[in-house]
Amino acid sequence: MADQEQPTAAAGPAGEAADEKKSKNAEKKAKKEAEKAAKKAAAKERELAERKKKEDADAADVSADSYGELPLVGSKDFKPTGTQRSNLADIASNEDKEITFRCWVENARVQSAKLAFLNLRQGLNTVQAVVAASEKLSKQMVKFSGSVSTESTLVVTGLVKRVKEEIKSATIKEFEIHITKLFVEVKAEVPLPLQVEDAERPLPSAGLGDEDEKQADDGRPLVGLNTRLDNRTIDLRAKINHAIFIIKSGVCALFQEFLSKRGFTLIHTPKIQGAAGEGGANVFELKYFDRSAYLAQSPQFYKQMLIASRFQKVMEIGPVFRAENSNTARHLTEFVGLDLEMEFQENYHEVMSVLEELMLFIFKELDTRYRAETELVRSAYHVEPFKLPESGKVPRINFAEGIAMLREAGEELGDYDDLTTPQEKHLGKLVLEKYGSDFYTLDQFPLAVRPAYTMPSPTNPNLSNSYDMFMRGQEICSGAQRIHDAALLAKMMREHDPPINPDADGTRDYVNCFRYGCPPHAGGGFGLERIVQFCECCVVDFLLLIQNC
Amino acid sequence: MADQEQPTAAAGPAGEAADEKKSKNAEKKAKKEAEKAAKKAAAKERELAERKKKEDADAADVSADSYGELPLVGSKDFKPTGTQRSNLADIASNEDKEITFRCWVENARVQSAKLAFLNLRQGLNTVQAVVAASEKLSKQMVKFSGSVSTESTLVVTGLVKRVKEEIKSATIKEFEIHITKLFVEVKAEVPLPLQVEDAERPLPSAGLGDEDEKQADDGRPLVGLNTRLDNRTIDLRAKINHAIFIIKSGVCALFQEFLSKRGFTLIHTPKIQGAAGEGGANVFELKYFDRSAYLAQSPQFYKQMLIASRFQKVMEIGPVFRAENSNTARHLTEFVGLDLEMEFQENYHEVMSVLEELMLFIFKELDTRYRAETELVRSAYHVEPFKLPESGKVPRINFAEGIAMLREAGEELGDYDDLTTPQEKHLGKLVLEKYGSDFYTLDQFPLAVRPAYTMPSPTNPNLSNSYDMFMRGQEICSGAQRIHDAALLAKMMREHDPPINPDADGTRDYVNCFRYGCPPHAGGGFGLERIVQFCECCVVDFLLLIQNC
Repeated sequence: MADQEQPTAAAGPAGEAADEKKSKNAEKKAKKEAEKAAKKAAAKERELAERKKKEDADAADVSADSYGELPLVGSKDFKPTGTQRSNLADIASNEDKEITFRCWVENARVQSAKLAFLNLRQGLNTVQAVVAASEKLSKQMVKFSGSVSTESTLVVTGLVKRVKEEIKSATIKEFEIHITKLFVEVKAEVPLPLQVEDAERPLPSAGLGDEDEKQADDGRPLVGLNTRLDNRTIDLRAKINHAIFIIKSGVCALFQEFLSKRGFTLIHTPKIQGAAGEGGANVFELKYFDRSAYLAQSPQFYKQMLIASRFQKVMEIGPVFRAENSNTARHLTEFVGLDLEMEFQENYHEVMSVLEELMLFIFKELDTRYRAETELVRSAYHVEPFKLPESGKVPRINFAEGIAMLREAGEELGDYDDLTTPQEKHLGKLVLEKYGSDFYTLDQFPLAVRPAYTMPSPTNPNLSNSYDMFMRGQEICSGAQRIHDAALLAKMMREHDPPINPDADGTRDYVNCFRYGCPPHAGGGFGLERIVQFCECCVVDFLLLIQNC
Repeated sequence: MADQEQPTAAAGPAGEAADEKKSKNAEKKAKKEAEKAAKKAAAKERELAERKKKEDADAADVSADSYGELPLVGSKDFKPTGTQRSNLADIASNEDKEITFRCWVENARVQSAKLAFLNLRQGLNTVQAVVAASEKLSKQMVKFSGSVSTESTLVVTGLVKRVKEEIKSATIKEFEIHITKLFVEVKAEVPLPLQVEDAERPLPSAGLGDEDEKQADDGRPLVGLNTRLDNRTIDLRAKINHAIFIIKSGVCALFQEFLSKRGFTLIHTPKIQGAAGEGGANVFELKYFDRSAYLAQSPQFYKQMLIASRFQKVMEIGPVFRAENSNTARHLTEFVGLDLEMEFQENYHEVMSVLEELMLFIFKELDTRYRAETELVRSAYHVEPFKLPESGKVPRINFAEGIAMLREAGEELGDYDDLTTPQEKHLGKLVLEKYGSDFYTLDQFPLAVRPAYTMPSPTNPNLSNSYDMFMRGQEICSGAQRIHDAALLAKMMREHDPPINPDADGTRDYVNCFRYGCPPHAGGGFGLERIVQFCECCVVDFLLLIQNC
C-alpha cells in the first residue's frame, strides 16, 4: 500500500550517521506526505459518498409523481380521476384554494435552479404561475416546468395566491398560481412557424403579403397575410381573433334572439339551385351529376316564396356565394348572410323600423354582453367609439336629400345616379356631422339601380320603395319592398336593364308564386362580416374565414 | 182617366129594349174588364215604382265603403290608417269586440242572397266568418264576400262572437267573426293548380309520382310529389308543412340555446374548399374562376382546426353537401348539419353525455314549446309517441353488446361488421323492448368502419372511441373522439382502407394543425331533417326543401 513506507537499502557503513539523519528526515517527510495523501483520499471518499447520497436522494425526486408527460388521452384505458377542472375566469372565488385546470403555455422560463415562471392561457385569460423548489417540490420539477415548449397543453394544479403588485404581463392581475403539479398533456413541436404574440398585432388594412414583411416600431416582425393563412390554426389562437369569432357568434345569436321574439321562423333555403336566379351574373356553377347547377347568390327568391307560402316572417343565417373576382376589403366570394323577409300591413316603413330596431339591439347588446371582446378588438385597432343618435331614433334620409347634401359638399352627381364607395363614405361623414350618428338609413333609391323585383315608388316612377343601411359610411344592409303581383313583376323584369325573361327557368316558378294571393312584403339582407368589420372597425373580411382557396 | 167610364153610342130604335139589355150587360162586362185592367196596370205601376225605389236604394249600397278590392299595397302613396291588426291566436281576449286582421280565404260560399260564409286562415289558425245582410250591410256585399276566390288575401273587420255549437270546420271552435268590412288585398287567380286542402294529406312514404295519382278513401285526389313540387309555394301553405318548418326552426333554436349556455361559440366554416377533404368521394366540384373547388361534405376538418386554435367548444348550423346519387328517404344531396366539437378533460364519454343531454332537452322542449305543431304533424302521420327512458338516463350500449343482442335475435353478423339499415332498425326494436327507449347511443364502433381520424380504442385495437345515436332505430348522429396527435393521425391515414395521403392538399394543413398542442376533443354531427323526420315520424326529407334541382 502506498501509505506503508519501506526502509530504503541505499545506506553504506561510511557516513552512516549523516545518512541516518537524512534517512530519518526523509522518513518524516514521507510520513507527512503519506498522512496528507491519506487525508486527501479520505476527504475524497467522503465527498464521493456524499455525492452518491445526494444523487440517490435526487433519483428519488420528491416531486416524481407531480410532473411529467401524460400518455395520449384516450389511448390508455384509464379511469377518470374525476378531479374538478376550473375555469380561470372564476379565479377570484378560489383565492387560497388549490385548483386544477387545463391551459396552454404562452411562455415558460427557468429563472434559477429553484425557480421557474410560466405564463398560462385559457380562453381569453392569462395568468402567471410560479414553480418554486422546496422540500416538497424538487429542482427537477422546476427545471422541467420552466422548459416546457410554448403552446403545449398542460394540466396544472396550484394554489391561487393574491399578489402584492399588479401583474402586467397577464390579464389576471391580482392573482398568481403557485404550482404543485404540472403535466404536459400535448407537447407542441418546436420551433413554431408563427408566434401567437405576433398574430395579436392587427394586420395593416392594405393586406401585407409575405414579400412586404417588415418590422414594427417595437422591433418585432410584422407577419404578413400569407404566413398567417398558411398557419391559420396558430394565427387564430391570438386573443384578438378569438374575440372576433366570439363577436361574430354573438351577432348571429342577437339577430336570432331579437327576431324570434317577434315571431320570425328560422329557415334554411337550398344553396344548390337548378338555375341561376336574379339574372345569372356572378354565379358559381357546379356539376350536379349529369347536369349543371348553381350556388345560391342570396336566399332572396326562396325567402319571398316562403312569404307567398304564408310564412309571415322568416329569417335565415347562412352562406352566400358570389363569383365576384373583386379583391377588395368589401368583397368575399363566400360570406355569411343574415337575411329576413316579412309581410307588412300598410307600409314598407314598418319593415324598415324592424331592421333599425334590430341593429340598435345588436349594437347595444354587443357593447354589454360582449364588452370584453369588443374592447379587446377596438383597442387593438385604435377605433373611435361607434356613435348612435342620442334620441335613439335612427336617421332616415331620403336618397334625394342625400344627393342634395353631397352636392352642397361639392360632389357632382345626377338625381338617379348610384353612389360610389367614396361618395357613400362622404355621405356617412356628413350624416354624422348633421345627425350625430354612425348608423343611418337611406330610403327611396332610384329604381334603375335596384333589382327588377323592387316595388316602384308611388311618388316618382324613377324611385323605388327600397333602402340601404350604413355603418361608418359603408353599406351593411340592402332591402326593399318586393313586387307581390305576378303581372307587375313580369312587366318590370322585361323593362329592366338588362331585361330578365320572366318565363325562363329559375324565374318562372318565382314569378308564378305571386299569382295566388301573396301578401305585401319587404325585407333585407345583412353581411355578417361587414357588421363586425364596421362596428369594431377591424379587418374581419381577411381574417374571419379559414383560407379556403 | 181609366177609372171614369164613358156611355157607349152603339144603341138603335128597333129592339131597343133587348139591345138595351144586351148593351147594358156588355157595358157591365166591359166596365168590369176595364176595372180589372186598371187594377192590373195600377199594380204594375206600383210594382215598378217600388222596384225603382228599391233599385235606387241598391245603387246607393249602404256598404259601398265596407268592401271591395284594394289597390296594390305600396303602389299608391296613401297614409297608413294605423288601425291595429289583430292576431287570430288572441281571439278569446277579443270577445264581443271588433277586430281587424289580415287573413286568407280557405273557402267562401254564398248561402243565400242575405248570407255568406267564409273560412279564413291566419298562420295555423282558421276561423269561420259570417256576412249577413241587414240595414247596415248590403246584399251586394254579401254576394261579393261569398264570391272571393280561394287563397285571396283579405283585410277583414268584424265582431268576435261566441257560438252556441262548436265549429268543426275551423281550428277556432268557440268563436266566429261577424264581418262588417271585407277588402281583398291580393286576389288569387283561379283555378288553383293544387288545393291546399289536398296538400294537408301526408305523402305516402314511397313518394308517389304523378303517374301514380289515386283517390284516397274519402274520394279526394291523392296529389303526387311532382305536382306538389311544381307548386311548392301552395303546397307549403298546408298547415302540416307550416308545422314542420316551425319544428325545424325550433330544433335549431333549442340546439343553440342548450349549447350557448354551455359556452359553445357559433361558427361558420367555409363551404367552398380548395381541396376535397376526407378522402374525396361524393364531393361536388365547382368552377372557381380559373381553377376547381369543392363543396364541403361536412365542417369536420374546420371544427377540429378551431379546437386546435383553442376554441374550447364550437357549434355550427349550416348546409352540408353530399354528391350521393342515392334516391332514398335517408339521403339528401344537401341537408342542414347540426355540428359540434369540444375539448374534453379525461374521457370522450364527457362529450357523449353532452350530446345525450342536448337531445333530451330538444325532445322535451319540442313537446312543450312546440306542442301544437308536433301534435298536428303526429296526428296527420298517425305516429306512436316517442318513448324516452323513465330514468332519464339514455341507454348507452357497447357495439359488442348490440351485436350480441342481434345474434340472439337471429341475425348473422361478424364482430367488426358495420350494421345494415335493417339491422339498425332491428336493434332499435330490441333496445326499445329491453330499455324502454326510442333513443339510445351505440358506443365503441369497429375502427375499420369509421373515418381515419377516429381515435382507436384503448381496450381493443379493432374498436374505436366512436359512437352513433339512434332514434326509432335510425341513425341521427355520428361522432367520435378524434386523433389530436399529428404523428398518430398520419399513421392511421396511411393504414386506412382506402389509404389517405397525409401530405396531400386538403389533408396536409389538417394534419399539421395537430403539431402544436391541440387538446383532446370529440364531437358529433346531426342531420336536422333526420331529427325532425324520426322524432315526428313524418316524411321530412321530401318536403322540407323547396325543390332545387
